[in-house]
Amino acid sequence: MLGGKLASRLVQDGALGGSAISQMSLLDAAPSVSPSDATFAVDTRVADISEPGAAEAALATRPDVIFHLAAVVSGEAEADLDKGYRVNLDGTRRLLDAIRTVGGGYRPRVVFSSSIAVFGPPFPDAIGDEHAPAPRTSYGAQKAIGELILADYSRRGLIDGMAVRLPTICVRPGTPNRAASGFFSSIIREPLNGREAILPVSENVRHWFASPRAAVGFLVHAATLETSVLGERRSLTMPGLSATVAEQIAALREVGGEEAVRLIRHEPDETIMRIVDGWPRNFDTRRALELGFRAEASFDEIIRIYLEDELGTETRETTL
Amino acid sequence: MLGGKLASRLVQDGALGGSAISQMSLLDAAPSVSPSDATFAVDTRVADISEPGAAEAALATRPDVIFHLAAVVSGEAEADLDKGYRVNLDGTRRLLDAIRTVGGGYRPRVVFSSSIAVFGPPFPDAIGDEHAPAPRTSYGAQKAIGELILADYSRRGLIDGMAVRLPTICVRPGTPNRAASGFFSSIIREPLNGREAILPVSENVRHWFASPRAAVGFLVHAATLETSVLGERRSLTMPGLSATVAEQIAALREVGGEEAVRLIRHEPDETIMRIVDGWPRNFDTRRALELGFRAEASFDEIIRIYLEDELGTETRETTL
Repeated sequence: MLGGKLASRLVQDGALGGSAISQMSLLDAAPSVSPSDATFAVDTRVADISEPGAAEAALATRPDVIFHLAAVVSGEAEADLDKGYRVNLDGTRRLLDAIRTVGGGYRPRVVFSSSIAVFGPPFPDAIGDEHAPAPRTSYGAQKAIGELILADYSRRGLIDGMAVRLPTICVRPGTPNRAASGFFSSIIREPLNGREAILPVSENVRHWFASPRAAVGFLVHAATLETSVLGERRSLTMPGLSATVAEQIAALREVGGEEAVRLIRHEPDETIMRIVDGWPRNFDTRRALELGFRAEASFDEIIRIYLEDELGTETRETTL
Repeated sequence: MLGGKLASRLVQDGALGGSAISQMSLLDAAPSVSPSDATFAVDTRVADISEPGAAEAALATRPDVIFHLAAVVSGEAEADLDKGYRVNLDGTRRLLDAIRTVGGGYRPRVVFSSSIAVFGPPFPDAIGDEHAPAPRTSYGAQKAIGELILADYSRRGLIDGMAVRLPTICVRPGTPNRAASGFFSSIIREPLNGREAILPVSENVRHWFASPRAAVGFLVHAATLETSVLGERRSLTMPGLSATVAEQIAALREVGGEEAVRLIRHEPDETIMRIVDGWPRNFDTRRALELGFRAEASFDEIIRIYLEDELGTETRETTL
């Protein structure tokens, strides 16, 4: 999802950090749609980054910037331990090792999409960048490991890496993926499209959100940032909005009315409640803010962005 | 070094956590000496834990407790990136995967020797257990990664793991290994044995120390601790002594006199100074202390332990 939006943004901008883009390669485990209207060459390839040779092939054009978003999501990484470690850990390592094998001074910017899932309870009131990752999911552990390798390879001068810890992306368009966080998006998206949505947790649940548009902005900014300002720290938690489910629903009511809110069916799910209970609620992201990363200030704004960016593209009926 | 001392301690005790030891297997990349006088079976094997099958073979006896100390040390892991990741990361993972492959409810205690090298500057005054690892060496990164996998596998109920972050072990007996921290021991050990030692850093350098005897104590305690008290955190920094090189030398003077101190040759080494500059100086280990882990309170005590435990076994001339 994020990869497609990032590709569209880059095609729209035609440039990254003031330099015109001359070529873009999209690598995904599933076939990806090549963005139309690109003013530069775009090639797409289907490959599993954790398979031998896949990363090497992807580097044939010696990209100056690499966005590494590929991951088995949290639900699936929890259900399939081997697959999660293979893709999320081995895949990341294969990519970074393929880069260092190129040699000849090749040292691309590598932007790694990490996640606030690296943090686990007990939490301080607001989690700062010096707070220790203590993941409560295998997905979070694999992201934290990816961060460590990225930082080590950056320190050694093999890559120029930055890891951005993404908030939970909301409102996520399209059909649900296997992430346990899916309901945060579906309770907004589905009602706005005239469909019922299930809320498996209490309305008091608080979490950390940013829109897909903001997330793409983080990735682009991380690709163009002067990394020397990062000093010894190559991983930063991205800004976001700390909001409760009740606040989400209030914002939905503003836009879609009571009719939309009535489409949310409360159906407590012990498993999801237990998972969500281990998720962080609030962060201190002053470092990222100082460096120019920006997210939304209200859930109203997050919904407005969904309406602007997505509603026209949803193929199914909408209530609006 | 630590493995040998741990084996001797276990042979001496004949028991672990109130249970008699029935069997002990020693696995090392180099031939290890089987402790004499064991009241139980001891087998030794030479294997590289990162090679396929090595971990499985080591588990043939289904040990209830596994001490995983095997590692490429910091200097070597920095010099040989592939070897460091292969042994320190892949080796750890192979061991843990071999355990989970056993099945049938097999869930041994796994004590993993991590290191304060997981931390990097900038540091707070005293580094607590909630402070984020940010290693400045590949060795530290590999240890931090091992901690994450150990915690994830423990959370999933596949092992019952605990990682102890060892202080710099001092006074290390025998010949220097390739660790950049070697001088902390050699400036005490060599003069006490009538030999010259090189001090490559300033006397103002402050660092975090524990004796080999204390380190063995940490490992034994971690093997017998009720891990439920650890809650969500499976890695703890071990207690130690925060001391400067000047304090080390003062303690040496107490024991060996001015004659011993004169054997320390000041020979600044920019490379080692830069590495040591990135090392932590002081910790807040109240959690480990609450749980019963104990280290020395003075450098005099650390030297006394060296004299008690080692000096008789050093084969070369001594000045004492």
